[in-house]
Amino acid sequence: MSEYYLSKETVQYAWDAANEPRLEIEPGDTVTIECLEASGAQVKPGDTAEAIGKLDFAGVNPLTGPVYVKGAKPGDALAVEILSFADKGWGWTGIIPGFGLLADDFADPYLKIWELGGARTEFKSGIHVPVEPFCGEMGVAPATDGPMPTPVPDVHGGNLDTRGLKAGSTLYLPVFREGALFCCGDAHAAQGDGEVCGTGIESDYDVTLRFTLLKEANFAEPRFTVASPLTAADSAGYYCTTSLGNDLFAAAQNAVRYMIDHLVEHHKLEPAEAYALCSVAADLKISQIVDAPNFGVSLYMPKSIFK
Amino acid sequence: MSEYYLSKETVQYAWDAANEPRLEIEPGDTVTIECLEASGAQVKPGDTAEAIGKLDFAGVNPLTGPVYVKGAKPGDALAVEILSFADKGWGWTGIIPGFGLLADDFADPYLKIWELGGARTEFKSGIHVPVEPFCGEMGVAPATDGPMPTPVPDVHGGNLDTRGLKAGSTLYLPVFREGALFCCGDAHAAQGDGEVCGTGIESDYDVTLRFTLLKEANFAEPRFTVASPLTAADSAGYYCTTSLGNDLFAAAQNAVRYMIDHLVEHHKLEPAEAYALCSVAADLKISQIVDAPNFGVSLYMPKSIFK
Repeated sequence: MSEYYLSKETVQYAWDAANEPRLEIEPGDTVTIECLEASGAQVKPGDTAEAIGKLDFAGVNPLTGPVYVKGAKPGDALAVEILSFADKGWGWTGIIPGFGLLADDFADPYLKIWELGGARTEFKSGIHVPVEPFCGEMGVAPATDGPMPTPVPDVHGGNLDTRGLKAGSTLYLPVFREGALFCCGDAHAAQGDGEVCGTGIESDYDVTLRFTLLKEANFAEPRFTVASPLTAADSAGYYCTTSLGNDLFAAAQNAVRYMIDHLVEHHKLEPAEAYALCSVAADLKISQIVDAPNFGVSLYMPKSIFK
Repeated sequence: MSEYYLSKETVQYAWDAANEPRLEIEPGDTVTIECLEASGAQVKPGDTAEAIGKLDFAGVNPLTGPVYVKGAKPGDALAVEILSFADKGWGWTGIIPGFGLLADDFADPYLKIWELGGARTEFKSGIHVPVEPFCGEMGVAPATDGPMPTPVPDVHGGNLDTRGLKAGSTLYLPVFREGALFCCGDAHAAQGDGEVCGTGIESDYDVTLRFTLLKEANFAEPRFTVASPLTAADSAGYYCTTSLGNDLFAAAQNAVRYMIDHLVEHHKLEPAEAYALCSVAADLKISQIVDAPNFGVSLYMPKSIFK
């Protein structure tokens, strides 16, 4: 069982089976992968919202890899054990005009720079978000030929943005190409289910992963296990908004709007701050999807983040 | 502060401002409300799936109430503190033909009768679901005149089927009529987020609630607080399936189908059993709703329910 380090010196800007492997490993090997944050170094510590306004989408969500796993064949699942995360001291959350669940409500760019290093990170005085890191992007080379954009997830994984993929979890990715050709990137120090404003706490991280194979698993889409409770942020319970309707997307939008109203009124936040805080800390749940025609989507904000 | 008991002797089969109040209380009063399970006594302990096949929807989700809360006026929120639940020893979970998230996949009726009494209840040998009760239905008289069917939730509450509304939680319902005219019913001993097969553990319960008012809250839809972690079932983590796509409803369907595949293969369940177990124990989450065109819905099944 060997251990490797893969730097972010070279990154990929597309999921593409034609990307040349940078590392070839045996099943059971461990790789520490240096992941560049989602802007691809377009946002830097000390920046203001101006940097978000200038963001070039062609350079977002760079990937480190591919890693070629010997013996991986189409139909197998690549099991990615998520071992540990090491931060680089900072992260950012942005509201990007035209992007996010409430793109029509928020026209202006917004940027928050976070300091990382402890178990929690300060949003502003009296509000601290627990650091629960994961990779937004983990995936393998797609079945189709040609480049697929990194911001869109699909059955090969990619931009899953799923907070359950934290240390202790194992992700099972369907393999479509010999060697699987795994890449990852876009690490988040924290993100709520939904990632409603379009960004989590976007951060540079070194991520340590162990790779094995589940032969002939024939999974249609990714699966994963979580080894422990999903979050430590739930200790004090939640404040929750909910919206009923036939359109789950519209219900999710309304639930977020109601939470923003609540945060503005009771926690003295600006609307953009409230929206960003929902994105990094609150969880969108489908409360029920059977009481047609009105399904229910709820947004759960952990009370423990407030002093 | 007075305490009252409201029996299920008389029940309502519609949300309707014309329903005569059965009890008039002051803000601060506590009422223990006897709730009839969702079938309205059409399903009984000892029944088989035949009872589900014969279910008359005109008799489902009966409500106990209304309770008139003095001083409640349109624009206020009725705060319902959820104090405690006392079971009646049994519950049921059914797959009802034509109803549920996977109605097209499951044509036949299915019924599971559960024994209640402890902190967990046995699904079958080696599988135990934690009992975390709540009322599926809690609401007030709607703004519109005339009867509204009880199975469909709306801004007045009703069939919210939201597992967060457990003991210790407080539900805030927008008030549309003088006195609010609160009813509840359809208690569930357990239900996952989504309630994917259309039923939880449908159970008779005595539910104790304390009512106060939040004057001029002007909430557009219900909100709630949860006082503690949402579930004790997460201690051993989760097995999770996920599906990516532009249609959140279809992605939720696929995530459930993949979980059913997993449970059939690894836990030796029949497909109908697996679907019912998802409905009572697994949680549907919107992992991300911003990476257009492919959003991600995940189903989290707690590993602690399996021996």
